[in-house]
Amino acid sequence: MISLSERKDLIRAALGEVPLDLKIDNVQVVNVYTGTVEFGAIGIKAGRIVTPYAADYKSAEIVDGGGKYALPGFIDTHVHLDSTLVIPENLSQLLLPRGTTVMLSDPMEIANVAGLPGFKALLRSRDELSYHIFLEVSSRVPTAPGLETTGGELNLQDVCEILAWPEAVSLGELDPSKVLGMRDEYLLKIEAAQRLGKICNGHAVGRVGKELVAYACGGLADDHECVDYEEALSRLKLGMAVLIREGSTERNLDLILNGVVRDGTYSHHLMFCTDDKHPDEILEEGHIDYMVNRAIELGIPPVQAVQMATINAAKHFRIEHLVGSLSPGRWADILLAEDLQQIVPGNVFFKGKQVVEDGRYIGSNPEVDYPAWLYETVTLKAGKNPADYILEGNGKRAQVWVIDLFPDQIINTKISAELEVVEGSVIPDPARDILKLAVVERHGKNGNIGITFVKGFGLKNGALASSIAHDHHNIIVAGTNDRDMAACTAAIEDMQGGFAIASDGKVLEQMALPIGGLLSEEPVEEIINSLEEINRVYQNIGGTLPAPFMTISFIGLPTVPDLGLTDKGLVDVLKHTLISSFVE
Amino acid sequence: MISLSERKDLIRAALGEVPLDLKIDNVQVVNVYTGTVEFGAIGIKAGRIVTPYAADYKSAEIVDGGGKYALPGFIDTHVHLDSTLVIPENLSQLLLPRGTTVMLSDPMEIANVAGLPGFKALLRSRDELSYHIFLEVSSRVPTAPGLETTGGELNLQDVCEILAWPEAVSLGELDPSKVLGMRDEYLLKIEAAQRLGKICNGHAVGRVGKELVAYACGGLADDHECVDYEEALSRLKLGMAVLIREGSTERNLDLILNGVVRDGTYSHHLMFCTDDKHPDEILEEGHIDYMVNRAIELGIPPVQAVQMATINAAKHFRIEHLVGSLSPGRWADILLAEDLQQIVPGNVFFKGKQVVEDGRYIGSNPEVDYPAWLYETVTLKAGKNPADYILEGNGKRAQVWVIDLFPDQIINTKISAELEVVEGSVIPDPARDILKLAVVERHGKNGNIGITFVKGFGLKNGALASSIAHDHHNIIVAGTNDRDMAACTAAIEDMQGGFAIASDGKVLEQMALPIGGLLSEEPVEEIINSLEEINRVYQNIGGTLPAPFMTISFIGLPTVPDLGLTDKGLVDVLKHTLISSFVE
Repeated sequence: MISLSERKDLIRAALGEVPLDLKIDNVQVVNVYTGTVEFGAIGIKAGRIVTPYAADYKSAEIVDGGGKYALPGFIDTHVHLDSTLVIPENLSQLLLPRGTTVMLSDPMEIANVAGLPGFKALLRSRDELSYHIFLEVSSRVPTAPGLETTGGELNLQDVCEILAWPEAVSLGELDPSKVLGMRDEYLLKIEAAQRLGKICNGHAVGRVGKELVAYACGGLADDHECVDYEEALSRLKLGMAVLIREGSTERNLDLILNGVVRDGTYSHHLMFCTDDKHPDEILEEGHIDYMVNRAIELGIPPVQAVQMATINAAKHFRIEHLVGSLSPGRWADILLAEDLQQIVPGNVFFKGKQVVEDGRYIGSNPEVDYPAWLYETVTLKAGKNPADYILEGNGKRAQVWVIDLFPDQIINTKISAELEVVEGSVIPDPARDILKLAVVERHGKNGNIGITFVKGFGLKNGALASSIAHDHHNIIVAGTNDRDMAACTAAIEDMQGGFAIASDGKVLEQMALPIGGLLSEEPVEEIINSLEEINRVYQNIGGTLPAPFMTISFIGLPTVPDLGLTDKGLVDVLKHTLISSFVE
Repeated sequence: MISLSERKDLIRAALGEVPLDLKIDNVQVVNVYTGTVEFGAIGIKAGRIVTPYAADYKSAEIVDGGGKYALPGFIDTHVHLDSTLVIPENLSQLLLPRGTTVMLSDPMEIANVAGLPGFKALLRSRDELSYHIFLEVSSRVPTAPGLETTGGELNLQDVCEILAWPEAVSLGELDPSKVLGMRDEYLLKIEAAQRLGKICNGHAVGRVGKELVAYACGGLADDHECVDYEEALSRLKLGMAVLIREGSTERNLDLILNGVVRDGTYSHHLMFCTDDKHPDEILEEGHIDYMVNRAIELGIPPVQAVQMATINAAKHFRIEHLVGSLSPGRWADILLAEDLQQIVPGNVFFKGKQVVEDGRYIGSNPEVDYPAWLYETVTLKAGKNPADYILEGNGKRAQVWVIDLFPDQIINTKISAELEVVEGSVIPDPARDILKLAVVERHGKNGNIGITFVKGFGLKNGALASSIAHDHHNIIVAGTNDRDMAACTAAIEDMQGGFAIASDGKVLEQMALPIGGLLSEEPVEEIINSLEEINRVYQNIGGTLPAPFMTISFIGLPTVPDLGLTDKGLVDVLKHTLISSFVE
């Protein structure tokens, strides 16, 4: 919110009674309200835009915009900050050179680990960052109550408390099963959001027909899970906005926008998000800027692509008085770019201060100041002993369920396979790429271990493990043998969270994520180096996936069909129930 | 808000577990989210839309839509309900046959007369009406503190209380002088609205350049006072939506839309309003339907014109989850029309019930139940004696200020004239169409009478008076002589509010508006007949204006340039100060 004295400063500057703080002269203003581009000068006071047509205003400081295009900062409409591996304080240097100034974030990961205190702790530096965080309030912590053990939870009262914060913009991605099952707790969360004037974000993975209609009737205002144009159009037709996603493993942009271009679909209810994107890919490929430029390549007119990345999102989330345009009173978040056909935000201003110069981040990162307990979130009651991973079988062979990965998609397929039983234990078969998959409870609660099998990781020997395992964030480990699986889990306990790879009983590589077992305080470059190194080691032992730790973190999700795995066992997602690992 | 059990009914119907209440089969759905038209069937449950594509749903009742176009109900984005002369309960029969199902209303008139209790009393039947009322919370009651006497006021605390109501969508039209003057009370009202997730409506009459920039910096999100395209474009360029107005006396539609069509201006931030429109004109010319059809005639594509009248407004006011489209979960407010080039909403459904059949209103009007004190709001301490109207002058002639009317505009021009002084009293000159204008305090507070002169009413003899006088709603009276002015005022006291015309000391015609001195409980036809009759009598004594009582009600407004008149005297609007009626 703007304070009364800031508001008065702004009005005084607008009236010309006091000089501007900064004027960016000689720019071509991309005006997302009129859809036009014309020469102007951005006037700034108290961190806000006074006017983008400030040619005749006096200013304490004047910067020559060199005739470049001036655009509003980009908005990522759905992202899990706590899925980037990087703490929010260090994320600026990745986001700002890409022009992203607003992150609409659902920090459900930290909430699953550490509840409301964890949620609040992660947002400590919010006001000091070089980008805005608005909150999509986690609607389902835990995601699958009764089917998984989490470290923390957000109950109805917690959710209502957070929804009332000014930085909360919505109820975050509500799982369809809660709505279609008409469960009071979740319908009351929707009611609370709407009563507080906030929207409700959808998460309608694969839903069609009457289920989709019912979900929309539940009050869900959008969906970021559309994988193609037909799905996107089906949402729009029911009055839901489409948050087009292009993350590390979910890549939906081309298929959706090809249809939009072909049909000339009305675009005001389209916007962009990344959902989950690893830092190395943000660095190399880009962030929302990548989506804007790809949209332009696919045939979306540049100003329209910019509208999708800015005002469309701001209107949908009801924060257009704060961000999303270069209009009076909005935060002075400004990108300068030489070309409007291929937008490279070479110079970026955040709250009126330059934070990117010639593509280089020059802003500051606030000091990290997390509480000690956030570094101590891995407590094992089992999982360090190879015997913990035995799945007992009778006879010589067993018919088991296998989670079959889908390349580039979050969904998986339920298949079955016959495996050997050796000394009473069902054993994986790396020759057919069928590994053992286990989820080890790590919140110190019960020592549960759920076991099943998975196809698609490609390992010939060894194991890999992660303390990021959506959404419960226990330790998930896939391997060719129990000894390496136990070694990985033990390494993660030692690091208090992270990724590990073991082979022949030894840890080959590891990467620490000690903040809640999810995030690292290391500088971004270090994190990217570590991630590249551990991916390389994964390939050395036969791995074939491009982003194995992203994949393993999602493969157990008990809310994405067909199958999930939690510490309590195998989950039939559409039936929302635990099932045996054996085909019966 | 939707209740939990209604929400569940809706979801069950959407899933096909229970039949719909009603299905309107065989319609061409105008989908404002995709901007397309295709065949569908509107499914309805619990008064809400289940889906507009309900062909394969079972329903308790099925109506054949006969291939007609199905559109969402129209939204009037800014209207003073209490300026229609008709009580809200009786307004349905005017609005619904015109397809208006949502009135975003600022009931500032009743608040000026009777404060917060009056405000609440007028909205008593809100939930039983055949149209929705959402509130633009009156930001300035009184409009010109210190310059006028009102019956009631809404202080900061009152405004904050109302803003928190779920039916409140915005802070209502805030006068620029309060923002540019940086007055804490009003800046705090803006802050309260934004904190509660509501927008702030502008009222930027004639403001340009730095004043307009400063006003936008104040947090004002729109303007409904644009008189031409240049003004409209200047607002859009500063990130303000434009509420295009076509009322009884303010007619801005053609000039604005001609520019929009010529330039192909991005239209998502354009919408429609009437502001103030008398019932006879709604009946004859139409309401928002008139604006939609005129827009289409001017070259706006039909679906785009419908978007302006529906979703654009719903998004701007952040009520798109409730109204503005035929999408799941929204109120089932549906218009059926045969032609999309000339939209006549022949059959209208409100909350899923048919309320207009073949152009005729068939809904019910709730019983009127206003408190007794709302019928007793005219208490005079002066004004019934001709001597009360004397403006004392010295010598033979006096140079006085004259409010010169502008045809079809709310603004006026400050001119001066030399008038005769007879027996110490400055007298009007009907030959030059210069009448005396007086405002008589009627709230029983002080007996103030403000006196000046006005040009444009055309009377050759007699006087006309009204207890509707924006925004203070004292009695305003214009006449050729003091005796007839006093007779009019006395007649209005007898009726406890209304309009009167007198000549030769006798009341020729009168029309009672006893609810707060603003509204009549008579049926709409009676009100229109009375209005036509009194207009005819006005013309009989020389009157030349098409809507003289609308004109006289605005001519004293102390917030619209150049001049205003209140019970305290003549007001220089731009200087926001009382001035002498004499040129000094």
